[in-house]
Amino acid sequence: MPKGEQTRRAILDHALEVATKEGLEGLTIGRLAQDLRLSKSGLFAHFGGKDELLLQVLETARTRFIERVVKPGLAARRGEPRVRALFESWLAWERSSSLPGGCPFIAAAIELDDRPGPARDYVVQSQKDWLEVIANSARTGIQEGQFRPDFDPEQFAYDLYGAMLSYHHVARLLRDPNADARVRRAFESLLARARRPHRAGH
Amino acid sequence: MPKGEQTRRAILDHALEVATKEGLEGLTIGRLAQDLRLSKSGLFAHFGGKDELLLQVLETARTRFIERVVKPGLAARRGEPRVRALFESWLAWERSSSLPGGCPFIAAAIELDDRPGPARDYVVQSQKDWLEVIANSARTGIQEGQFRPDFDPEQFAYDLYGAMLSYHHVARLLRDPNADARVRRAFESLLARARRPHRAGH
Repeated sequence: MPKGEQTRRAILDHALEVATKEGLEGLTIGRLAQDLRLSKSGLFAHFGGKDELLLQVLETARTRFIERVVKPGLAARRGEPRVRALFESWLAWERSSSLPGGCPFIAAAIELDDRPGPARDYVVQSQKDWLEVIANSARTGIQEGQFRPDFDPEQFAYDLYGAMLSYHHVARLLRDPNADARVRRAFESLLARARRPHRAGH
Repeated sequence: MPKGEQTRRAILDHALEVATKEGLEGLTIGRLAQDLRLSKSGLFAHFGGKDELLLQVLETARTRFIERVVKPGLAARRGEPRVRALFESWLAWERSSSLPGGCPFIAAAIELDDRPGPARDYVVQSQKDWLEVIANSARTGIQEGQFRPDFDPEQFAYDLYGAMLSYHHVARLLRDPNADARVRRAFESLLARARRPHRAGH
């Protein structure tokens, strides 16, 4: 990897950390220059300005999200194992030490929902893709005969994402020690409702 | 009401609007002075500074939340009608025209979760109270014999708040036209699981 590219990635890694803790609003060229002891003009050479920096941070987050959450999820067997793998890898992502403020898309969603522009558009696309990954994975559960034929995969994606958002809220803001048990119970209830009635006694 | 108090309330109403759309970060004395054509020194006289302004905006939000969501909810009959009233009044609150960015506590939760201080503490208390209002209302459903004896009111509060957070996300960020149908379906599923097995065929 060329040195310039290495530097750019190191800057983006740090920028993503700042963004998860202090929000995208806290992300400025000046702030990064200070943290990383780089010249402002050097940072401008890499990113051209705040808007471009923001987009590249979101792209960094998305690339990592696909690597760490989507890929391990889709690698699991179809149906319930796949849904479970997605859930577990999302939890690991939300808690990973490289994201001290949790999933950056949750913060970005709240920060950008009333701010039209390329950054908002990017977050919207990423979140639609994520809901679709959950729904499509859940749909394989019907095809495999594990889930009820009238099971609604899009509603499942909505419900599961709700449980994840509630986890973010309860663990990060309220620091509730029961957050892990809560999100797991929510997940198991959703799965229990999804299964065909004659399976597993539900 | 004395004139000074009227002015203070008008400022706080506007400040809350700004906060729901642009986040608490967007809320500065200078910004409000410009919007309302008041002098900065006059605003300082009312609020003393940004931190005090922030706390008073959160207090304004909480007072309104109690008026518009908690009171109408608790006024309904015990059990399922009460839980339903809380849900409906929360939805009306989240969509009210005076909160153009939706529930201000959702934005505040994300913005403040990594920023220790009085504003964070205030949001934590408010959110704990809200989860308790939901759980306590749901608990009356057991006492009235409508909900299963082994129903978990705290888990219900977690799950219902998840459905609400998902609504905020899907309606505000994704502008999904199905958001209303999704949150209602999530709510009805939670209620169906809460009910005693011999009631309503569930």
